[in-house]
This record gives sequence, C-alpha cells and structure tokens, in this order.
Amino acid sequence: MVQTAPRQLKLGAILAGVGTNHGDWRDPAVPGDASVDINWYIEQARKAEAAKLDLVFIVDSPFITPDTAPHYLNRLEPLTLLSGIAVSTSRIGLVGTLTTSYWEPYNVARQFGSLDHISKGRAGWNVVTTGLEGAARNYGREEHFAHAERYARALEFVQVVQGLWDSYEDDAFPRDKAAGIFLRKDRQHRLDHNGVHFSVAGPLALSRSRQGQPVIFQAGDSDEGRNLGAHIAEGTFAAAADFETALSYTRDLKARAARLGRDPDRIVVMPGLSVFLADSDEEARALEEARLGRLDFAKSLVELGRLFNYHDFSAYDPDAAFPDVSNLTLNSYKGGAERVVRTAREEGLSLRETVARFVERRSAFVGTAATVADEIERWFRAGAVDGFNLHVARPADFDRFLTGVVPILQDRGLFRRDYEHDTLRGHLGLPVPENRYTVARGLADAIAAE
Amino acid sequence: MVQTAPRQLKLGAILAGVGTNHGDWRDPAVPGDASVDINWYIEQARKAEAAKLDLVFIVDSPFITPDTAPHYLNRLEPLTLLSGIAVSTSRIGLVGTLTTSYWEPYNVARQFGSLDHISKGRAGWNVVTTGLEGAARNYGREEHFAHAERYARALEFVQVVQGLWDSYEDDAFPRDKAAGIFLRKDRQHRLDHNGVHFSVAGPLALSRSRQGQPVIFQAGDSDEGRNLGAHIAEGTFAAAADFETALSYTRDLKARAARLGRDPDRIVVMPGLSVFLADSDEEARALEEARLGRLDFAKSLVELGRLFNYHDFSAYDPDAAFPDVSNLTLNSYKGGAERVVRTAREEGLSLRETVARFVERRSAFVGTAATVADEIERWFRAGAVDGFNLHVARPADFDRFLTGVVPILQDRGLFRRDYEHDTLRGHLGLPVPENRYTVARGLADAIAAE
Repeated sequence: MVQTAPRQLKLGAILAGVGTNHGDWRDPAVPGDASVDINWYIEQARKAEAAKLDLVFIVDSPFITPDTAPHYLNRLEPLTLLSGIAVSTSRIGLVGTLTTSYWEPYNVARQFGSLDHISKGRAGWNVVTTGLEGAARNYGREEHFAHAERYARALEFVQVVQGLWDSYEDDAFPRDKAAGIFLRKDRQHRLDHNGVHFSVAGPLALSRSRQGQPVIFQAGDSDEGRNLGAHIAEGTFAAAADFETALSYTRDLKARAARLGRDPDRIVVMPGLSVFLADSDEEARALEEARLGRLDFAKSLVELGRLFNYHDFSAYDPDAAFPDVSNLTLNSYKGGAERVVRTAREEGLSLRETVARFVERRSAFVGTAATVADEIERWFRAGAVDGFNLHVARPADFDRFLTGVVPILQDRGLFRRDYEHDTLRGHLGLPVPENRYTVARGLADAIAAE
Repeated sequence: MVQTAPRQLKLGAILAGVGTNHGDWRDPAVPGDASVDINWYIEQARKAEAAKLDLVFIVDSPFITPDTAPHYLNRLEPLTLLSGIAVSTSRIGLVGTLTTSYWEPYNVARQFGSLDHISKGRAGWNVVTTGLEGAARNYGREEHFAHAERYARALEFVQVVQGLWDSYEDDAFPRDKAAGIFLRKDRQHRLDHNGVHFSVAGPLALSRSRQGQPVIFQAGDSDEGRNLGAHIAEGTFAAAADFETALSYTRDLKARAARLGRDPDRIVVMPGLSVFLADSDEEARALEEARLGRLDFAKSLVELGRLFNYHDFSAYDPDAAFPDVSNLTLNSYKGGAERVVRTAREEGLSLRETVARFVERRSAFVGTAATVADEIERWFRAGAVDGFNLHVARPADFDRFLTGVVPILQDRGLFRRDYEHDTLRGHLGLPVPENRYTVARGLADAIAAE
C-alpha cells in the first residue's frame, strides 16, 4: 500500500491595513495610514512568508458611504497592491478579491494573468459578486444585479476568464531568433465565447505562468454561493461562526462539488479567523473583553446594517428581540444576513446580543499559543476546515501567531517547516490545469492514431 | 526683473519588453521573454532612474491576432507591471496606457490612484481610445465605437476619473485615536456624475497622493485627438515623423489649449524617439541600415495595415504608388493613418517607400552621442518638443543613450544632473491640482466673509 503524505494544514494572512473591524485602527501599533501604505503591506507579507504561510489575502469592496468603517474607507486596490508585494516576496501566494459584477472578463484575465507572471506563479483570484447595492451607482447602473443573476454571471465570467488564460499553449513561443519564428500560430487560440451574459473573442495577449492559471477562491455562503463554489472554487474563504457551522459548510460544499464530478480534495476550505493571544488564557480573554469594551455600539450597528445593504438598525431598541426584517430583500450579503436572522431567531437573541455575536466578537480563537493551536488542530483534524485565513488586525497578535502558534503546529507535524514549492498551486496541493487546447489536440491525435 | 530658471528638457523611456518593432526581438541582447519578465522591466527602469530620467512609459493594446508583432503578442498588463516597478524604484515617474473605451471609470480611478499611492506620487495615465476595431469583440460589442464617439467618451471618462480622485480633501483623515475620529465626514464628497456616457456616484475609497492626482498623458494626433489633448493633456506622446511635423503639432496643440484658457506651458510634449548610436555617424547609419535589411517586408506590411484596422496591404504591388485606400473608414489609428496617406500622396511614395518611412525607419536620430544630442537640442530649443520618450528596443542603444547622450545634455545645461523632486508632477514642472471641493469651500468662505 502506498504511504501518502499526511494532510497538511493551510494558513493564509488577510492583510487588512487598519484592520478588519471599525475599532481596530485605534490600536496604538496600527499606523493610521496603513491601508494606503504599500510598505506596511510588504512588511506584513514578508513576515507571513518568513513563517512559511501559504498566502496573503486582500479583501475588497467597491462602494463606501461616510459611515463605512475605516478599513474600507481609504485603501489600496488589490491588484496594484499585490503586484507591489509580488516583487517584494518570492514564495508566498497572493490572493486578491475582485467582483464579477462590475468588471470586464478580458481586463480581469489580463490583470490576474499578469500578476501570475509578475509573481512567477503565485496569483489567486477571490471571486465575489459584490454584496452592496450601492455599488451599482458607481458603475452606471440604477440597480444592482439581483442575487441569482449575480451568481449566474459570476459562473460565466470565471469560465470566460479561464478560457482566456488558455489562449496560448505552453509550447506557443519557440522564439527562434535565427529562423525568425517568435510564435507558433497554431498554438494561439481564440475563445470565441458567446454566452448569456458575455461575448468575448480573444485571444488574450498573455501566456500561462508556471502554475498554469491563477487559483480561484470564492467566499459565497448562500445556496447560490455554495453552488458557484462547487463549480469553480479551488479555495474558499467562507465565514465560520463556530465549529459546527464550519463542519456543516465544508461537508456540504465538498458534497456539492463531488456531485458535479469534481474531486472534493481539490477545494481547500480556509475560513477567516481572528485570534487574541497572550501568555495565559485569562489574559487573552481579558484582551478580547477590553477590545469589545472599546467598541462604539453605534458603529457596530452600522457594520451589522452593511450585511443588509446598509439597513438602519439604530431605530430599534437594542435590548428587545432582534427585529423583524423579513420585509427586506436580502440582495446584499445574502448568506451572511440569512445566518444572522436565523441564529437570532433560533437563539432568541436581542439586537445587542446579535451585534456582539456577529460584528464585535466573530469567530475568534482566544488564549495562549497552545490553546489556539489546539483549536486549530481540532477543527482541522475533524475536517471542518483545511486551514484558516488569519485576519491581521492587531500587529501584536499577528506576531504572536507567527512566532508562537505556527511553531507549535510545525512541531505537531501539521504545518510545513519550509516551502516545498514556489507556486500557490504547489503550496495548496492543487494540480497545474492542463491547457484545454493541448488536451483537445492530444485526444484528436489519439483518435487519429487508432 | 525676475530671473526664471532655464527651461529643462524632459526625457522618458518607453519600456517595451521585446521591442517596438516586429524585428527588435531578434537582437541577441533582448531576452525572448522580456515582455513577460518583470525583472527585465525593473532592470531597465532602474537604469533610467540612475540617469535621472523623468519617467518610464508603457504602451498597450487590447487586441491581437496571430499576425500581431511580438511586442504586442504576449505582454504584462501596464498597471500591474508599473506597480511592480513602483516598489523597485523611488524617484522616476510611471506612466501607463489604458483605454477609455473598454473600462469602467470607477475601476480606472481606483487603480491609477492606488498606483499613485504605491509610488508615492509618481503615477501618470496615458489616455487612449483604442485604435483597433477588433478590440470591441473582446468586450461584448459587435462594433467598435466610432472615432468621434470614442473621443467624446474619452473626455467625459477622464473628467469622471479626475472627479473621483478628489473624493477626499487633503485634511479628510484626522485619524485621532484618542477621540476615535478617523474621517471628517464633511471632507468626503460624492461626485454624482450623470453625463452623456457615464453615470458614477462615488465617492472613491481612496485619498489623494502627494502629487494630488496622477498626470494625464494623451497621444491622439487626429483633429479629435488634438482637441482631447487640448482639454485634458498634461503631457503628450504623439508621433513626430520629422522636425516640421513636430513643430507644427506642438504649436497647434498648445494654441488649442490656450484657446480653452489653459496655460500652454502646462502641457509637456514628449514624442517617441528611436535612436541608433555608435562611435561614429557612419557606424550608426550602418547599424540602422543593417537592422532595416533584416526586417521581413511581409511583416512590415502587417504593421502598416494595423494603422488601418489590419487592412491587408499584401495584395498591392509594393513598387507601385501607394494604393488608393479612400474607401476605408479610418476608425482605427485615424491621425496616424491620415498622415501616412497624405504623405504618400504628396511625396509620390510607393507602398515600399511608405513602409520604409512609417514602419521600418520611423523618426530615428542616428549618429554619435554628440550628433544625437545636437538633434535633441535643436528640436527642444526650437520649441518643436519639450522632450522625448525614448523607445527602448535595443539594449545597446539604451545604454549608449543613458551613458553617452544624457551626460552631454547635462553638460549643456539642458537636463538635470540629479532629481530635484520626487513626484512625477515635480519632475515635469506641473503644479499639484487643488482639490475642487477645497477650492469651492474656500470661495464660499470668502464670499461669506465679504
């Protein structure tokens, strides 16, 4: 019997400038302009790379209001940001978020393909459809696409982009200077896609990188979101409020993928994770409590409202039961909003308790490095996750995670001590996708030879 | 009388991977994969910065065919490419080409604004409308926008982007951790643009950089192109076939700008320039002749055809008079194509001679470093140009230009010996644009105080 290598935990770092919560920026160690300072990002990425993490991850949003939390108010755009990080690192993966609702597939294919070359095969694209209806008005539309349409467009969009990424077979460029042959013309392919939502001819003016194509991440948690993930995701970054939720999500997503004929091991589930770390569990809990105590409830209400397309929750009694919002069309962050409503109903939470659960506390692991490592190991061994994407909000916690938690995970044989690969696909154990035209010609040749 | 500083020559380097002509890639010193190798670009940019050049420049095209020349066939996308260069340099300006015909203003504003932050105020955007009709089919359109419509859209597009860049006044972010005030809400502004071609609400989630806004470059040479330049250009990168053409273009463009009430000194005219350099003028001419002799006439015909939307010129007798193409709709590179037709007609050129003039030879300065410096000085002092953008095609010529021609220009007091600024606006002598909302409030305050 072949001995297979033990399953390895995956770890990413969500680099977030001034944080991931409306209060994080007030941490004395966070520079006020971190979200627009490339040097801050490069420094965090290099730390993550020194600890052998799989990837850094950049979230995004194409719509703000004056009440939007600081980490979305003023920030570098993911692709330019990641290109700056790419030339400042050498091994760590680089995953950026970009919406399929307000971009052109041709431009997206070019930019992520270019990032994949610039990073020598370390690019990933986190595919989102944009939750906030207000984004529509930044793009010449009166109304945001309806939820189901957004997901249908997303699937077709990704298929177009992946088709464009195959425009050149890997042997397309002999670059024979003596003979004057740069391109083998029969190795360049037009996509000629004519679909429901997009028509794109191609070819893209870009060859494939060392990892073939950028890795596709996806984060949707609604029914449509999970179906999209089952079709296209090679990694997911879904919410995981608690262990049971995570386990149920992962089983469901992988079952959906298997039903589509995909190998469920080729989807790496890496939910976001917040940590509070200290020398004792009590101290860590006190840190978390202190942070919660500093949060402005009015701002937390705005962040809760963001899940419901900036619905105004300040009109409700915070200590009464979570209000009836069944009249709202959940066209924003539908999966997340549905979970909030369902949980509040089932557990009889007040508005204040709901805010504490979903905005202020979220799914943090709190304690010593060993306590947090135990929890990570538990989730991982049970198959609730394949790894985590750590929210980098408080620099002290990030440093403690990298120098405290990661070595424990290494000692337990769960996490790599050094990189064995230098592409993102290599780190995540994902195969290099074969070029579709090379595959097709191989089949045609085989049939002709029979 | 105030002594004003002498007018200073501006110099840019067009970094072009495997070159700017279908034969350049065969130069033994050009790596075959230069156009997709970020390290090649970074190396050239650092050389340019060491020589104190104003900027590097990246051209672009969103459409290829199997017959497209090597430098457009397979290449990094400008914004990701320039972001990689940005963190690898510290002073030189970074100008990227992007079309207004197939992008969303909100995304363009974010990405160039982000590059401006990543580079600490060194970004520039070369605004183009896309010459090639085939591009339409990469973006879901059956037909390319007509020439006049392209330019009307371009003007509105740039105005929207510049409006979005002003979303935050420069004092918008007190980031007072003690008081918990990150943003002054009255310093964030929605654009609420509702125009003929675009509707964009804003605000953009990005503050202004040290230079206020990226510098706008433009390259159109047709009547519509010049009008657009007169409205928006702070720098131009137009063709300059010869001295008379350049002088006439520059006078015309600046006169158009003056008629619009703009200061003509605030448009820096920097046409493209090719050089062949050697230790003697004869040797340099021999280099150029040898290069022309190596060019494949059939491929040169394709490049000529590109100006006419890939019209097939191979069907004509190359030694007969330039063919009658009056039946073609010049919706591609209209200014350039009109110039070709007019010149061929006026000078009675054959097709072969036309190809030699406009595709193969172009406007090269050929000779020793001193000869080339003399020609640059002559054009500059006469006001035909404010500077040049050097086509970086053959590494040997680039090195000779930087180490031979530039020092002569410095000795003559025409070009800086060291950087006096660290923003692109600083290098080009362009003022930092005031934020429109700050200006408006200043006016309102002044009126209220009267």
